[in-house]
Amino acid sequence: MKMYDFTLAPSPRRVRIFLAEKGIDVELVQVDIMRNANRTPEFYKKNPSGSLPILELDDGSCLSESVAICRYFEEIHPEPPLFGVGAREKALVEMWNRRIELAIFAPVGHVWSHLSKVAEGRGRRIPEFGEIQQREAIDRIAWLDAELKNREFIAGDRYSIADITMLCMIDFARTVDIRIQPEQTNLARWYTNASSRPSAKA
Amino acid sequence: MKMYDFTLAPSPRRVRIFLAEKGIDVELVQVDIMRNANRTPEFYKKNPSGSLPILELDDGSCLSESVAICRYFEEIHPEPPLFGVGAREKALVEMWNRRIELAIFAPVGHVWSHLSKVAEGRGRRIPEFGEIQQREAIDRIAWLDAELKNREFIAGDRYSIADITMLCMIDFARTVDIRIQPEQTNLARWYTNASSRPSAKA
Repeated sequence: MKMYDFTLAPSPRRVRIFLAEKGIDVELVQVDIMRNANRTPEFYKKNPSGSLPILELDDGSCLSESVAICRYFEEIHPEPPLFGVGAREKALVEMWNRRIELAIFAPVGHVWSHLSKVAEGRGRRIPEFGEIQQREAIDRIAWLDAELKNREFIAGDRYSIADITMLCMIDFARTVDIRIQPEQTNLARWYTNASSRPSAKA
Repeated sequence: MKMYDFTLAPSPRRVRIFLAEKGIDVELVQVDIMRNANRTPEFYKKNPSGSLPILELDDGSCLSESVAICRYFEEIHPEPPLFGVGAREKALVEMWNRRIELAIFAPVGHVWSHLSKVAEGRGRRIPEFGEIQQREAIDRIAWLDAELKNREFIAGDRYSIADITMLCMIDFARTVDIRIQPEQTNLARWYTNASSRPSAKA
């Protein structure tokens, strides 16, 4: 099997960190999405949306969506568990992973698309929408700082895919100048911890 | 346990259908979100975003995010499986559920927020953004019709949470006048099938 990857993009990095935490080696094939190397008929056959990452299995069939690829590896290589253990913890990991994705990562993505210099010319932009999303992302990062007051990791006492999503989001947010603020000490403590794990370099 | 629900909203319906497919009875408590009954300090304690559904467990702790609540029930009541069986099928269900959510449901939600009459006065609106999302939703529904040519259900040969997400999306899209088109015969066949299951009335 092999995974189509682009080192600079935040979504493939989620899967790379997940694989590093599990100690799984997968062949990576670089696809330069900034030069539209994914906008080819061959690529749209692998994933109709053209987005990365894509996992190509040995039978040639493909899986896309970062979390779907991670779930595949959780099933074939359960240790260490990164989607939680037991009904309640699995649900909490799912809930927090989605909160980070939908409430923070998505707005940050809109800021990148609608306001960043690097995304200029890559589609119709509505700066006013980008600005609303920027405020939402900043507010919700502050909310998350408060949430982290009484626990070590995003979804509880165990490192999970929700921490991976958050780490990739925080690092991506820097590209649009959204950063952990000096007073956000819980988040800063969490970030120091998550980003010093060896997997963070993946 | 009990679930905070609003009959007219598409997200709680996802969980109600999921429970009906599993044959699980849960006490439902109606919360009129159109009259802001969820915008209270008590409610924000249950879910900081204020959104529905929320599952309150017997110890008073709460789960939010429809899919997280569904996953909780999948774990405590595995039959019939609605998140797939085996690594590959579980990954495909995750992939398709996310594709429906992110590529179609989210744009339809933006159309509702930015263009619909009923959402007027419920937040800052950018009609131009709503129109872009409307075209995306319509294009992607057409894409899904083509995808359904060679299989019975959204993620393969088995009914899954991805079908539930799609059914709730299609019924919700009607409220913003986005409908299955006469030439979309694969989608129409799928819709007749999914909406005639007893669970669709949940």
